[in-house]
Amino acid sequence: MAKKLFMFEKPLGMRDTLPFLYELKKQVRSVMAEEIERWGYEFIETPTLEYYETVGTASAIADHRLFKLLDQQGHTLVLRPDMTAPIARVAASRLYDDGNPLRLAYNANVFRAQQREGGRPAEFEQIGVELVGDGTVTADAEVISLMVALLKRAGLGRFSVAIGHIGYVNALFLEILGNEERASVLRRFLYEKNYVGYREHVKSWPLSSIDQKRLLDLLSLRGGTDVIDEAKTLVTSDEGRRAADELSALMAALRTYGVAEAVKLDMALVSHMSYYTGILFDVYAEQVGFPIGNGGRYDDLLAKFSRPAPATGFGLRVDRLIEAIGETDVRGDIECIVFSQERLAEAVELAEAKRAEGQRVVLQHIAGIRDIDAYSQRYRSIVYLLGRGGGHDEP
Amino acid sequence: MAKKLFMFEKPLGMRDTLPFLYELKKQVRSVMAEEIERWGYEFIETPTLEYYETVGTASAIADHRLFKLLDQQGHTLVLRPDMTAPIARVAASRLYDDGNPLRLAYNANVFRAQQREGGRPAEFEQIGVELVGDGTVTADAEVISLMVALLKRAGLGRFSVAIGHIGYVNALFLEILGNEERASVLRRFLYEKNYVGYREHVKSWPLSSIDQKRLLDLLSLRGGTDVIDEAKTLVTSDEGRRAADELSALMAALRTYGVAEAVKLDMALVSHMSYYTGILFDVYAEQVGFPIGNGGRYDDLLAKFSRPAPATGFGLRVDRLIEAIGETDVRGDIECIVFSQERLAEAVELAEAKRAEGQRVVLQHIAGIRDIDAYSQRYRSIVYLLGRGGGHDEP
Repeated sequence: MAKKLFMFEKPLGMRDTLPFLYELKKQVRSVMAEEIERWGYEFIETPTLEYYETVGTASAIADHRLFKLLDQQGHTLVLRPDMTAPIARVAASRLYDDGNPLRLAYNANVFRAQQREGGRPAEFEQIGVELVGDGTVTADAEVISLMVALLKRAGLGRFSVAIGHIGYVNALFLEILGNEERASVLRRFLYEKNYVGYREHVKSWPLSSIDQKRLLDLLSLRGGTDVIDEAKTLVTSDEGRRAADELSALMAALRTYGVAEAVKLDMALVSHMSYYTGILFDVYAEQVGFPIGNGGRYDDLLAKFSRPAPATGFGLRVDRLIEAIGETDVRGDIECIVFSQERLAEAVELAEAKRAEGQRVVLQHIAGIRDIDAYSQRYRSIVYLLGRGGGHDEP
Repeated sequence: MAKKLFMFEKPLGMRDTLPFLYELKKQVRSVMAEEIERWGYEFIETPTLEYYETVGTASAIADHRLFKLLDQQGHTLVLRPDMTAPIARVAASRLYDDGNPLRLAYNANVFRAQQREGGRPAEFEQIGVELVGDGTVTADAEVISLMVALLKRAGLGRFSVAIGHIGYVNALFLEILGNEERASVLRRFLYEKNYVGYREHVKSWPLSSIDQKRLLDLLSLRGGTDVIDEAKTLVTSDEGRRAADELSALMAALRTYGVAEAVKLDMALVSHMSYYTGILFDVYAEQVGFPIGNGGRYDDLLAKFSRPAPATGFGLRVDRLIEAIGETDVRGDIECIVFSQERLAEAVELAEAKRAEGQRVVLQHIAGIRDIDAYSQRYRSIVYLLGRGGGHDEP
């Protein structure tokens, strides 16, 4: 039996956004949306609820993290756990008619059920883009460059984009381990960033010392373009080498886009998003423990919606981004006019004049106020229009 | 057994918003939010999911219209069916500490399950305000005036706000019918605007001819302030007369606010929102069959969250408002630069310069385009940077 609730309570992981935080979010969201539009991306919205059978299973979020409900026709619905799968659905069904690149953007809340109190939010806002239909490395470079441009516009000082290639990791693991089962064990350690567990597991398996060393060396392949040459020495397959070459081309393009100083390679980077097929990336800010965004190439997802097409994109988390930016002063700068009944006309006129100049003005009947001292604390200034006399009474 | 779904399908009543409509919504939402802020209201956000036991039951939306799900602790959750109850929760628990008026605003999607295909949307966007803690008629006048100001700012040409008083209707029904059961039958006819059914029912009941006439006369009490005098002749109770006096005071205030020409009285107006306790209103635009917004006073709702307080507010439906405004030209004005690999640097530089001037520019590698003729149709103009030559090649 569930415990009795207080009327104030909210479901696990659900949060209110009060005026101060709302204002911060609005400002950050607005400058980022403007930049996204300048790069020619077009925003769309998709429903909060999708079918489990379609978008839910395509979404790459673990089943126990999905909010599910039944509709009256007997279908299971989910609250969208990410935006990439819904956008793939829309692109495939309604927009992608000539096979040409399509640039779409979104700004929406997504939902992931939480197991425990006090943990992560179960609903959070993302802003991001999807570039559908372009398989070139330049497309990957564009979305990374756009993400960097957004973070700069949002006022984030220090951040770093870690770039890897899931095709490289998969090729290396397949060459050495020979089967997917062991590969998936190692991939899990990597996305949990549990490098101790990774090392212990590698050492516990009956591999040649050369192969063990190859697997352990993967962890140190981090930095600038020089790690790509090292990375090539670890793999022998065409797939592995091709992935490394793609990263070379990507880094060259990122230099041209002028964002090379914001990125670093991490050959051991993998994602919990299982639909990535190529280049992928995470972005970290100083002082925030979790990535504030991530993205990558997902060339197989559109095929699930019957329109095979290459695609790449990213999503940024607005809550973590604001945490990373830190507090800035966006205090609501509101004036208040307190009036008595006989001076309503005068008060309306004064408020209209101030609002026409862009000033934020509250108009408040004195009879509606319980504690005038407390009330006057809330506003930058108060004008009193009380009694019959002309002129404003300042407190 | 549920039918097999196509991958493209969306749940009943769920819709995508494609770029053209998104742009319309964004513009309308943005001018309205700006005006709301100028009146000193502060925006907040609340979670999409709330407890059924708390906000769900307080919401005044019929139970079969709620989207419900179970959480892992055994509680029933609902997708919020309106914003008034969640805002009352926040106001009561976190913001309303000195008993003084509180001006809050929201812009959010709400959810109401649909029974049939092809019907109304199950998820739609609302923008609105709640003025909590002020029981004066001036507070009602303010929210109605703000609503009128928003509709004008949004570019809506012709619309009409119908104003009534649920206290008046309840008093009249109680005087004549003596019990709540029959009153609720008549109220239902009124909010369904089924006046034929109303008349037939009134005539079928064993009432004196005078009382029948009083109930039938209610339907014709529509128009300017002169209907208030007529309305007073129909009621004898203090409650009924007090309601009529409130409407007189409201109309006087609305004249002072300069919005009298946008409103008319409708003494038979009732709402399906059961929490209204006083003045209430609907707004209709020409050519849209459903109200594009509604509001009213709800002086008992905050008490459900343990903080009794008077309150009034309104909500506008963004989808219906856009339908009422009609199509306006917001075509995305995007340029495209198509480049080949060797001219990436030049293309990036040109795009950056144009974007810095506020121009929307797509940067597209020629290798990513399948059908250049189809692609070039999408953009206002295309600049080609192909091959090794300098200068722009126009098509």
